[in-house]
Amino acid sequence: MARRLESYLLTPGPVTVPHAIKMAMMVDRSANSVPVIEMVRTIRRYLLEICNGTAHYECVPLQGSATYAVEAVFQSLVPKGSRILVIENGAYGARMARIAEVAGFEVKKLSFGLQPMPTGEDVAAALDADPDIDYVGLCHVETSTGALNPIKEIAAAARARGKKVIIDAVASFGGIPIDVEELDLDALIISPNKCFESVPGIGIVIARRTTLVEAKGRSVSLCLDLHDQWAFLEQNGFFRWTPPTHVLGAFAEAVRLHEAEGGVPARNARYREHWSRLVNALRQRGFTTLLPDAHNAPIVTSFNVITDPNFTFNKLFHALDKRGVIIFPGNFPAVGTFRIGVMGDLQKADIDYIIQCIDDAMEEMGVNLDAPAPMAVPR
Amino acid sequence: MARRLESYLLTPGPVTVPHAIKMAMMVDRSANSVPVIEMVRTIRRYLLEICNGTAHYECVPLQGSATYAVEAVFQSLVPKGSRILVIENGAYGARMARIAEVAGFEVKKLSFGLQPMPTGEDVAAALDADPDIDYVGLCHVETSTGALNPIKEIAAAARARGKKVIIDAVASFGGIPIDVEELDLDALIISPNKCFESVPGIGIVIARRTTLVEAKGRSVSLCLDLHDQWAFLEQNGFFRWTPPTHVLGAFAEAVRLHEAEGGVPARNARYREHWSRLVNALRQRGFTTLLPDAHNAPIVTSFNVITDPNFTFNKLFHALDKRGVIIFPGNFPAVGTFRIGVMGDLQKADIDYIIQCIDDAMEEMGVNLDAPAPMAVPR
Repeated sequence: MARRLESYLLTPGPVTVPHAIKMAMMVDRSANSVPVIEMVRTIRRYLLEICNGTAHYECVPLQGSATYAVEAVFQSLVPKGSRILVIENGAYGARMARIAEVAGFEVKKLSFGLQPMPTGEDVAAALDADPDIDYVGLCHVETSTGALNPIKEIAAAARARGKKVIIDAVASFGGIPIDVEELDLDALIISPNKCFESVPGIGIVIARRTTLVEAKGRSVSLCLDLHDQWAFLEQNGFFRWTPPTHVLGAFAEAVRLHEAEGGVPARNARYREHWSRLVNALRQRGFTTLLPDAHNAPIVTSFNVITDPNFTFNKLFHALDKRGVIIFPGNFPAVGTFRIGVMGDLQKADIDYIIQCIDDAMEEMGVNLDAPAPMAVPR
Repeated sequence: MARRLESYLLTPGPVTVPHAIKMAMMVDRSANSVPVIEMVRTIRRYLLEICNGTAHYECVPLQGSATYAVEAVFQSLVPKGSRILVIENGAYGARMARIAEVAGFEVKKLSFGLQPMPTGEDVAAALDADPDIDYVGLCHVETSTGALNPIKEIAAAARARGKKVIIDAVASFGGIPIDVEELDLDALIISPNKCFESVPGIGIVIARRTTLVEAKGRSVSLCLDLHDQWAFLEQNGFFRWTPPTHVLGAFAEAVRLHEAEGGVPARNARYREHWSRLVNALRQRGFTTLLPDAHNAPIVTSFNVITDPNFTFNKLFHALDKRGVIIFPGNFPAVGTFRIGVMGDLQKADIDYIIQCIDDAMEEMGVNLDAPAPMAVPR
């Protein structure tokens, strides 16, 4: 139960970045130099490989953040005038809908609470009721709650009706398997600073090659023009304009570490193990999770707060913060919960240290862990 | 003449980042934590202070790069249907024009070669000939050549005719004085990775407060919506969505070092001293500069290549590269030149090391430095 690191970011991202990845930022690299070109090539190739995208997809990294990549998909890859159905069961689904609306699209929201989860049948019914919809967009893991959406059945329902599918896999990619070919996606949005455990500063789109080709000249934003970025990358090997070179250096190292660990299966196994260890320990102490395990991604969990009069989220946050452990409050639609993530540079002993910190925090707060009464699940 | 650093990025940016600034990236920070909020506040306040912007301007940092900040100005702060005059005497003026065109504006280019430089009279004449123009946009330092545009007389000519002025001070800000109040600007675009010597990953806009207020709901890009970003920053102190936290950590340290050095005057003096030392040394060896000194910003210089049959830019580049010194070729409109920048973590002894490297490179290439014939200035 020793504290190994100065801080543990158990948030839904950015996460605790392994030392070797941060060290890769200690080198200044010229934006169009051979080492940067080689890094960009390695990153793009590896990301396509691990989602079975090499045959028909392209990987387009973009300066900004994962949210920029979400917007770039709508600005570049979706023809103006398209109608979009967004599955919304949390803050990130809601953000996707807002991005598309601001970009001028007619957006229909298919909204859900925490339970039941959206299903393929729900989406099929919504599409049958409104056949003019062209696209279905949704999050794989809804980071605001930890909900793991059933993308296979939803994508299948959409594709069976001739709709194109866009998936925000920002939180999940690298830690949960995704096969773009099998899902028959138009675009997948991914992030360096979640399951890849790297630093934030870019977003990445995996786009169907034919979709990218058709996107030429469509975007009214030059920065968020995925076709322009892709065409330049293909021709020159480097970004159109200054990338975050240090962030790219870190991501290249993160990709190397991801592959060395054993790729998506190995990372998934590590996260599952840590997730179970943490959730089981908290359940033993009387906490309950917001979602049933089958619907919870093994990367972040929302816990219900408890009714002990001495317990508040703020007290827990500060008691953990001073021990170097950072957690997040719940977000829409799970306000009143708290979230603990297990992405990042965590070993089994770190999870034990974190559990010990929670015990110490509870004792400090004067919370009796023997008989806490879980709160009702917020709706 | 000892080599102090592993590499010298003498490019127009990213530059050689001081060790202390890179070390600030070795800490993982939560995106909405107290340390990040404090950093963001310090950065925003300092940037306003050094351009005399505290009374009527706001500082809005944005994920991406400086080019994103240029685009954000056009997407957010310029009403749709506006007509824009862009002064173009290099690649960055041309990029500003392209960004505005892609965003749907009617853009008129006032184009110049290398000499003569654009003047206030040129701009006055262009505006008098086309009174429907609403905005004038230009670069302060045209990084592609090193040209220092006379922003005072151009801004005055524009303001005298009731036009709004947007200045891209990406290359110059922090190293060359700028007074937004005196220039009466609508927006100024700045970068962390030029004269602030920090790492790339964000862009920053200094915008007139009333202009920002009027921008509410205008942008068709949520990511590049400066009003939305500003309003959220004002309310919460942190970014709307994941910022490049490590990049922000570096920039906070860079701002601290900038102030500790003595602010803009001290940095300007250091760059001028290094610029003169380098340019004088190369002139003694027979090189000529593309621009007269009065028109050259003291941060980057374009040199004409020489006609010695053994000299090529590629040979020079590689001979310097293996000595850890990275230079850039000339860019439009100065193709056929080469550029050397003096921004970044450079001391007088480093300049001497660089001059020694150039001597060694020339000897290795078999170039006779006693009697080189300068090439004609490209037009």
